[in-house]
Amino acid sequence: MPQLTLADRVADAVRSVTGSGPVGLHEPNFSGNEWAYLKECLDSTYVSSVGKFVDKFEADLAAFTGARHAVAVVNGTAALHVALMLAGVGRDDEVLVPALTFVATACAVAYCGATSHFVDSEERTLGMDARALRDYLGSVAEVRDGQCINRSSGKVIRAMVPMHTFGHPVDIEGLLSVARDFHIVLVEDAAESLGSSIGDRHTGTFGLIGTLSFNGNKTVTTGGGGALLINDTQLAKRAKHLTTTAKLPHRWEFLHDEIGYNYRMPNINAALGCAQLERLPEFLAAKRRLYERYRSAFEGIASVRVVAEPSGCNSNYWLQAILLDESIAGERDSILAATNDSGLMTRPVWNLMHHLGPYRDCPRMALPVAESLERRLINIPSSAQLGMGPSN
Amino acid sequence: MPQLTLADRVADAVRSVTGSGPVGLHEPNFSGNEWAYLKECLDSTYVSSVGKFVDKFEADLAAFTGARHAVAVVNGTAALHVALMLAGVGRDDEVLVPALTFVATACAVAYCGATSHFVDSEERTLGMDARALRDYLGSVAEVRDGQCINRSSGKVIRAMVPMHTFGHPVDIEGLLSVARDFHIVLVEDAAESLGSSIGDRHTGTFGLIGTLSFNGNKTVTTGGGGALLINDTQLAKRAKHLTTTAKLPHRWEFLHDEIGYNYRMPNINAALGCAQLERLPEFLAAKRRLYERYRSAFEGIASVRVVAEPSGCNSNYWLQAILLDESIAGERDSILAATNDSGLMTRPVWNLMHHLGPYRDCPRMALPVAESLERRLINIPSSAQLGMGPSN
Repeated sequence: MPQLTLADRVADAVRSVTGSGPVGLHEPNFSGNEWAYLKECLDSTYVSSVGKFVDKFEADLAAFTGARHAVAVVNGTAALHVALMLAGVGRDDEVLVPALTFVATACAVAYCGATSHFVDSEERTLGMDARALRDYLGSVAEVRDGQCINRSSGKVIRAMVPMHTFGHPVDIEGLLSVARDFHIVLVEDAAESLGSSIGDRHTGTFGLIGTLSFNGNKTVTTGGGGALLINDTQLAKRAKHLTTTAKLPHRWEFLHDEIGYNYRMPNINAALGCAQLERLPEFLAAKRRLYERYRSAFEGIASVRVVAEPSGCNSNYWLQAILLDESIAGERDSILAATNDSGLMTRPVWNLMHHLGPYRDCPRMALPVAESLERRLINIPSSAQLGMGPSN
Repeated sequence: MPQLTLADRVADAVRSVTGSGPVGLHEPNFSGNEWAYLKECLDSTYVSSVGKFVDKFEADLAAFTGARHAVAVVNGTAALHVALMLAGVGRDDEVLVPALTFVATACAVAYCGATSHFVDSEERTLGMDARALRDYLGSVAEVRDGQCINRSSGKVIRAMVPMHTFGHPVDIEGLLSVARDFHIVLVEDAAESLGSSIGDRHTGTFGLIGTLSFNGNKTVTTGGGGALLINDTQLAKRAKHLTTTAKLPHRWEFLHDEIGYNYRMPNINAALGCAQLERLPEFLAAKRRLYERYRSAFEGIASVRVVAEPSGCNSNYWLQAILLDESIAGERDSILAATNDSGLMTRPVWNLMHHLGPYRDCPRMALPVAESLERRLINIPSSAQLGMGPSN
């Protein structure tokens, strides 16, 4: 018998969990009330920016996450944009962003006319490294008149946007402490972590504002959609106002008192979201089972481990990932090819932000861990359905 | 018998067309394939930013309008934002915008970091007055090195964004001529005019780019949505790229080569749009019948006329409107109160842009016609359904 390559062994391990046939990276599941709620939407003719499902989706999100308020918007990128505006980020500010993130985080900073400033990750959480960030800020920044100034650029470091990578919670306590000491506003990019918590508190509720995404590949989808989680009532009112064209309430006049945004989530998308949220506990349980199955399947492959939630945290296991030891990082692309060739959709983690043209010249700290993770991380099929049936 | 007030007579005329019960300003109609296509979406699990309905909706829009390309986006405001970016509008430019428009036009200019410069309307079309604009530019601007410079601000007047008000086509030939002579790019805000044409050419296909809206109150709705109409193939490719996070095609890498936007229309919204577009000819016929009915109903009321399409044009009659003679403009609010009190939803035209806080200090020409129209226009119930059955 010819010896199997590492790539083949990885593909076999994934296949042992997923069963046969083509397997997507993350497919939604619509076997609940999705159908009924969409029909109700059409029958009522309320499909657009006003409707009872928008209100219900916001209330359901607030109830599930424990945030005092949730404001539904058109997608996660819009949620980040508004969150940064509300955090006071403006032209010529800098914002601390993980180098390892989906590009939306850096885009939202650019929309504000501000500059991303990239932060390294820790391997334990895949998210911003609080200790390394503290040391770095201590050497390059100083607090002056209650603002954190980047001594090199002279700009204000206004906010930080840690992201809970693949749903695994970041070291939020460590980062909140850095934010406090350096007078930086913390906005939580919880786009990937609906259902993830730290202790008994839901991700996205620690910072001034948290943001969610309900894109088609997320744990819960509205087609396209996002939300802001906000505890401060005044701030939540302002978020709703800014995202709904800044129109003042009036029986018939069209008065808009600031430059607003049309970031409203349509009722039809919210209807889908309401049905999906009802299934969330079931999805979370299935995704956790899927992790356990992968962990078993990969036990026999040295130098490859399935990424697990950080201790003290509860991850939603949005995207399952395997991490190669540095010694076999060179095998990453052959593993990607072998799995995709055999109908198993896998992908590497996003290219680091400072490797992308538009963000190449942004300021950054040394990024050894993020750069190592970029070489070694592979996402494997993660749909909740894969953890629902009996194991293969 | 007590004499009826003007407000009562207007309410009675509207009621004679709409029949009894509460009547909204513009309600969508979902009695076609909406349900079937949404179900197909759910069954396929393709509800998000990729899917066959997005492609079909774009192809159907291009076929209907005669534009070479249509790019579906998340709403009309996003379409305007991208259109202006593609027109080269940047920080510190000025953009000519009708004073009489929905606020999205001015917002999109602001998103580019540019300044709106407000233009007067002509009563015949309710849109930008080409002749007045030509005279105005002749006195305040000059062409220097192929750019139109506002002599007072020193800024480049980069683009103009005429809007087809309530679906009635603007004087596009006159405006194209001004644009040509003053080296200004023309972007057509056709948010309200799907189905409207000038001669045999669809609105939104005359300028460099045209934009559409499919908000819940539009002739055709996708819940929330918009599109760009573009004849130039390279420009259309760039529009698709910019609105889909500027991601380069690759089997698994995440490479984004510029600051992109998440302005993708979800497949589920496009599914609704495909079904709605099939009904468009029927909607247009009904809306034209509704206009005829209103015209008859208002024949006996002196000083009030129902707004008709400009000659040589074919309007979609998106929103029906009555125009009060200047002598009775003071009755506007009593008419709005009488109609709304009796369950007929009516509203005035939007507050003019220079009357809104964020745009108060923008440059503008004299706006006597727009200011007069603001005092005298009232939109009355306009749903296609109202023109579908036998007349009351």
